[in-house]
Amino acid sequence: MKFYMPTKLYLEEDCVYRHRKELAALGSHALLVTGRHSARVNGAYDDVVKSLEDQGVSYSLFDEIEENPSVETVARAAAFGREQKADFVIGIGGGSPMDAAKAIALLMNHPEEEPSVLYEKKELEALPVAAVPTTAGTGSEVTPYAILTLHELQTKKSMSHHVFPVLSLADAKYLSFAGRELLINTAVDTLAHLIESHLNKNTTEYSRLFSSQGLKLWGEIKEALSAGELSGGQYEKLMRTSTLGGMAISHTGTSFPHGMSYYLTYNMGVPHGKAVGIFLPAFLELYGTKEPDEVRQVLEYLDFDEIGTFRKYIRQVLGTIKVTEEQITSYTDGMMANTAKLANFPYPVTKEQMRNLFETSLAVQ
Amino acid sequence: MKFYMPTKLYLEEDCVYRHRKELAALGSHALLVTGRHSARVNGAYDDVVKSLEDQGVSYSLFDEIEENPSVETVARAAAFGREQKADFVIGIGGGSPMDAAKAIALLMNHPEEEPSVLYEKKELEALPVAAVPTTAGTGSEVTPYAILTLHELQTKKSMSHHVFPVLSLADAKYLSFAGRELLINTAVDTLAHLIESHLNKNTTEYSRLFSSQGLKLWGEIKEALSAGELSGGQYEKLMRTSTLGGMAISHTGTSFPHGMSYYLTYNMGVPHGKAVGIFLPAFLELYGTKEPDEVRQVLEYLDFDEIGTFRKYIRQVLGTIKVTEEQITSYTDGMMANTAKLANFPYPVTKEQMRNLFETSLAVQ
Repeated sequence: MKFYMPTKLYLEEDCVYRHRKELAALGSHALLVTGRHSARVNGAYDDVVKSLEDQGVSYSLFDEIEENPSVETVARAAAFGREQKADFVIGIGGGSPMDAAKAIALLMNHPEEEPSVLYEKKELEALPVAAVPTTAGTGSEVTPYAILTLHELQTKKSMSHHVFPVLSLADAKYLSFAGRELLINTAVDTLAHLIESHLNKNTTEYSRLFSSQGLKLWGEIKEALSAGELSGGQYEKLMRTSTLGGMAISHTGTSFPHGMSYYLTYNMGVPHGKAVGIFLPAFLELYGTKEPDEVRQVLEYLDFDEIGTFRKYIRQVLGTIKVTEEQITSYTDGMMANTAKLANFPYPVTKEQMRNLFETSLAVQ
Repeated sequence: MKFYMPTKLYLEEDCVYRHRKELAALGSHALLVTGRHSARVNGAYDDVVKSLEDQGVSYSLFDEIEENPSVETVARAAAFGREQKADFVIGIGGGSPMDAAKAIALLMNHPEEEPSVLYEKKELEALPVAAVPTTAGTGSEVTPYAILTLHELQTKKSMSHHVFPVLSLADAKYLSFAGRELLINTAVDTLAHLIESHLNKNTTEYSRLFSSQGLKLWGEIKEALSAGELSGGQYEKLMRTSTLGGMAISHTGTSFPHGMSYYLTYNMGVPHGKAVGIFLPAFLELYGTKEPDEVRQVLEYLDFDEIGTFRKYIRQVLGTIKVTEEQITSYTDGMMANTAKLANFPYPVTKEQMRNLFETSLAVQ
């Protein structure tokens, strides 16, 4: 079994400014990568700028990362970063800017390559990446993954290369600016990371250190999340949980719910966390047909008495998603061809079982 | 709080040969660092040589690392490694060769510096280090520490620089070549890492992931260790425990028992694990005066009902160590000046309490 989690992570109040020397030491001109608004609203952008200015490191801003960023946007940002002669990249925001930052840092370091190299099997190094998460869900600040929208495949897909941030600065105070829906959707993404890593063919004693503790912490804040009323300490706990989920999937990868979610997000614009979380009860049920004790353990960590209660909770916080029979047929076919996700499930899965996962999780019109 | 554990670790059977490509990719000429005998007896040296030869990477051997290696030996090895134009270092063996490898890699990379630089506060990079542990105790394969013998201070001390191995290959099969005494002494060193990290001012949720799980695993093999009869699966468990102890102290440092042990080892040649372990019951007792619940939790993880049972176990596996009143006075003064270890204890400690730690742990003549 393997342990590998090379990111240096600080999780504490004011950690961006507090560790500004380490941030600034990554290069001489930074490319800041953000979405259009949120990094400014929650204060993370200002903290990064203040820290870099304090250390005399210049920067350029690319603030056009959309939700579920496309390869095209990433390529445009990389071209801009090269023009600006940036030598490191700071992703600020949720999973979209952080994932994009990794892909941008890779393309910037390889001007000789086309953007399609993101999905080729080559050994390429990226420029140093730092991450400042402002949502707690993706865990991207401690994973090597960058999930991008691939229009040619009409879905989202992780790039082939692994790029761990060298430095991540996680300050829970940014979370308090998120609205209830964003908060629950991102928190459910973390829950999915924890469950899909814990119940995974690649799970190890090391990965379970992270997933077990993360599940327990998630269980401790589930009522506050559902009520949409988190206190300061609970925001901090949510941020910790999110890093644990990221560390867990860095060792195992994710499983069916993540693979299944990408269709809903690509085709219907369902937010990532909701699209993933909707499949969790059915996933537990399927896993439980093979490993009932493992599933019971997961529910116990989360402090749910049984799958039924868990399903009710998920329905309550996420609502429902409507699809057609044709969509289910198409997505089922897609998943049965998704060898990466199939390989992370420790047992063979039939097409009928896969279809059933979709049918019992979604409202079929 | 901080998470930082950048070593890539494989813990599995035949991992040296299995991951020979990653090992060989660290450079073009390796300096192998071992003690005089054991790495040859247990097969680790042969596995490394076979792996490098398979990959066409040449190597030179420095096999003169003594127990508790001195700065002088490290300097001699570094000079040899530079002569041989080695560009990476592989430490094979117990804590002594692995710790030495880190210091050697640092000196090799800085020919302009004197060996005294090992104890100066400078920011220096080392050549890449790989580690192949053949005992389970030190955890050096996943720590940045290198404890060397410093004759001018008449004790052992960690060098100022932090050098994590970039790659560690931990194969439990080497452990079966260790005799009973080596096995128990090194295992008790791991136990000390787990306890001294768990009960530490710097303990965090992250460090406790490692220490909690390590303590539980140690508890599961304690009877087999005491009987000196480990099976294959238990060797593997011991190796896992040792890596968890290393990951834990990488986040927190050690506490009094480690600081206290160095005097016994330097002055009387007591093996490191025994010298550390002898102080654990008194350390638990002292900590328990402030944090009884924390100490109870540690004992519960280890599956001991109370400190008395734990003390009896330690006495049984380690025996006793005799010292004079003068020694105790001198060591107590030394510890009261050891600001690093005092800082890792969350409460002020009086000279009387420190003296008491020595007196109740050792047989005073």
